[in-house]
Amino acid sequence: MRAVDILRKKRDGIALERREIDAFVQGVTADAWPDYQAAALLMAIVLRGMDADETAHLTRAMVESGARLDWSDLPGPKVDKHSTGGVGDKTSLILAPLAAACGCVVPMMSGRGLGHTGGTLDKLEAIPGFRVDLSLDQFRAALHHVGCALIGQTREVAPADKILYGLRDVTATVESIPLITASIMSKKIAEGIDALVMDVKCGQGAFMKPLPEARALASSLVATGNANGVRTRALITAMDAPLGRAVGNALEVRESIETLQGNGPRDIEMLSVVLAAQMVHLGGLAGSREEAEAKVRDALASGRGLEKLRQTIAQQGGDPRVVDDLSRLPAAPHELPLRAERDGVIAEVNAEFVGLASMLLGAGRDRVEDAVDPAVGVMLERKPGDAVKAGETLAVVHFRSEARLSEAMVLLQNAWKIAEEAPAGHRMILDEIA
Amino acid sequence: MRAVDILRKKRDGIALERREIDAFVQGVTADAWPDYQAAALLMAIVLRGMDADETAHLTRAMVESGARLDWSDLPGPKVDKHSTGGVGDKTSLILAPLAAACGCVVPMMSGRGLGHTGGTLDKLEAIPGFRVDLSLDQFRAALHHVGCALIGQTREVAPADKILYGLRDVTATVESIPLITASIMSKKIAEGIDALVMDVKCGQGAFMKPLPEARALASSLVATGNANGVRTRALITAMDAPLGRAVGNALEVRESIETLQGNGPRDIEMLSVVLAAQMVHLGGLAGSREEAEAKVRDALASGRGLEKLRQTIAQQGGDPRVVDDLSRLPAAPHELPLRAERDGVIAEVNAEFVGLASMLLGAGRDRVEDAVDPAVGVMLERKPGDAVKAGETLAVVHFRSEARLSEAMVLLQNAWKIAEEAPAGHRMILDEIA
Repeated sequence: MRAVDILRKKRDGIALERREIDAFVQGVTADAWPDYQAAALLMAIVLRGMDADETAHLTRAMVESGARLDWSDLPGPKVDKHSTGGVGDKTSLILAPLAAACGCVVPMMSGRGLGHTGGTLDKLEAIPGFRVDLSLDQFRAALHHVGCALIGQTREVAPADKILYGLRDVTATVESIPLITASIMSKKIAEGIDALVMDVKCGQGAFMKPLPEARALASSLVATGNANGVRTRALITAMDAPLGRAVGNALEVRESIETLQGNGPRDIEMLSVVLAAQMVHLGGLAGSREEAEAKVRDALASGRGLEKLRQTIAQQGGDPRVVDDLSRLPAAPHELPLRAERDGVIAEVNAEFVGLASMLLGAGRDRVEDAVDPAVGVMLERKPGDAVKAGETLAVVHFRSEARLSEAMVLLQNAWKIAEEAPAGHRMILDEIA
Repeated sequence: MRAVDILRKKRDGIALERREIDAFVQGVTADAWPDYQAAALLMAIVLRGMDADETAHLTRAMVESGARLDWSDLPGPKVDKHSTGGVGDKTSLILAPLAAACGCVVPMMSGRGLGHTGGTLDKLEAIPGFRVDLSLDQFRAALHHVGCALIGQTREVAPADKILYGLRDVTATVESIPLITASIMSKKIAEGIDALVMDVKCGQGAFMKPLPEARALASSLVATGNANGVRTRALITAMDAPLGRAVGNALEVRESIETLQGNGPRDIEMLSVVLAAQMVHLGGLAGSREEAEAKVRDALASGRGLEKLRQTIAQQGGDPRVVDDLSRLPAAPHELPLRAERDGVIAEVNAEFVGLASMLLGAGRDRVEDAVDPAVGVMLERKPGDAVKAGETLAVVHFRSEARLSEAMVLLQNAWKIAEEAPAGHRMILDEIA
């Protein structure tokens, strides 16, 4: 089977067979396919697409390029949640302990922030001492003792994805639903989970801005998970304004702890509970959504969720005292308020602008090799629907250096739209694909 | 200007600007663009296409990757002809001397055969001593003394094409009208010609089999030539049956000499005269097609064309005595007739099958690195429209080794279709694009 014949087939819009997809993924992993042939095939896939069977095969081949973890010795359903990336989205830190408190085993492998979106690993590392680079043995021990663990992707998992992602990044072949699906799902399936809840973000702060695109991605993710033996459900959720009030790593950890203490912003608590309930339900630990949500609400109200977070921090080398003493989290040396220029009602807070401002302050990355500052970020004081008077504070900027402060402030000034009247209320959960 | 941004633009179907195309071609030539980015862009071009301006820019950038030859010190119009490749097509050997005899300067750079089609260089090298690898100084001297010279592509000409062609061959990105146009035209424009006649082959023995595709290629070639200052005209000509009766290098040289002696097959003489007349007319040496054709016919009838061929052979190191003594050409040691199995009229001779049979006998190449045998080939005794009786000879196979003889004979047996009635006569010139 020659590479050039596989390329020609996809170029001409013909679906690839399983053995052809295997040859591609194995060839790339073993460095037997030259980069130029892989790059040409990726471009042909972007422009010709892949059907559901091809996408499922591609995903499976990428899983098989490495190890598929096996937690069959641990009791309980293995369930994870994954989001396509948003601004202020700290739900993983909240729902993993909640789901574990309800009996799920949550072997969560997360990523780092890039561009305007944050990453769970960066947030966790804001906790003094917290380690995300556990070995597989340490990962297993954490799941055994705590029930959830939050780590970075290990080398053993889906090595083909790492190679292909590097190539996609430099060949303008990132934007493709089958390729995005295979990249996300190969890593999740290799985690050895039974069930997965996907949070597909939609709106101007998301990668997939229009709803039809988000729906198409969600359908592809669900079909691919189910075809590979992982019960998968997707929620499409709004990502127009940032989630909660905190954007920035330590600020978001603080808000996560407050949420598990019962004092979090309403939107963050609601989304965390809904996603955790989906995990509990899909994991078979409740007979209905309502029962699952009641269990999660009980774990939250009883403090068992907060206790799981404390155990997770201790198990992964972090200082668990942060849970009781938020002043142990890193804090930025300076604060600057952003003031409203007129009276009115907040019509819009542009999540992308806030995310970019936070990145410029040092909370995120422009390039993958950049380091992040755990302390800096933005605290939102006014969100859509809130009334405001001229001169009142819209947000507080937590910063360390003035280097890019003025750029960040310009972005923030443009992020808030103040109108005469309250905007129409908008829903958080836009759709569900099962 | 980042490569990935150029890729993204073409991926999304947006026309590239001149400076973006320049960055690509210069990057590839200077080895500054990695192969994988070039390959991804080539695939995007295949699937998204290029408009006439982009194709003209790409062609010009490829010309500028090397030297554009300059013959302004030589009197007379510089005119060439190029064909997209056929079976039994030896017209270059006939029309270059005829056009030179009429006052054209013909700096013809040709290629070698590949697959079922032959190449002018292989045919010329069947003449004992003939050299196609002239230096630029020798090329100039030949044009000065004789008026025509037939050589291989020099290193100086369109180096970007050589790099891109190598990449296209292994990434399934050969079949693209803009890329084919730029590859052909960059080499022809770099020859330093004023005018070009393209012979675009169409039919089952051609690379572009359907007429609409051949028309699209012809239009693209003509537009691109004219946009780059070369007056270009294209004929679309039939390539269903082989041209003439000889297929194979020395056999085709023999037929070319016989044609210049006035004893060639009607189709070869007609096509050579029509194409040479187009060259003379486009070169401005005649006020009308009729006048141009009369000049060419006079060069043929007077023997001045044959004399030019004799001079060309002598100038390029070959033995000019072959022109008077065809037995000085290499001859295969064995001959085998192909017999008709029934009475009837020849309805079809499949050019692709005859070309492949000739290649299997050793006259052509399966891979570019293969050597060719100048002596072997096929002489057609019956062509479409000819009557035949069972047992009569359809063709004579000239062979050296029996290694792949039986394979070649099977192909030949399937090449001739014998019917009850004569086929409808078909035209040689299917269309003209000016």
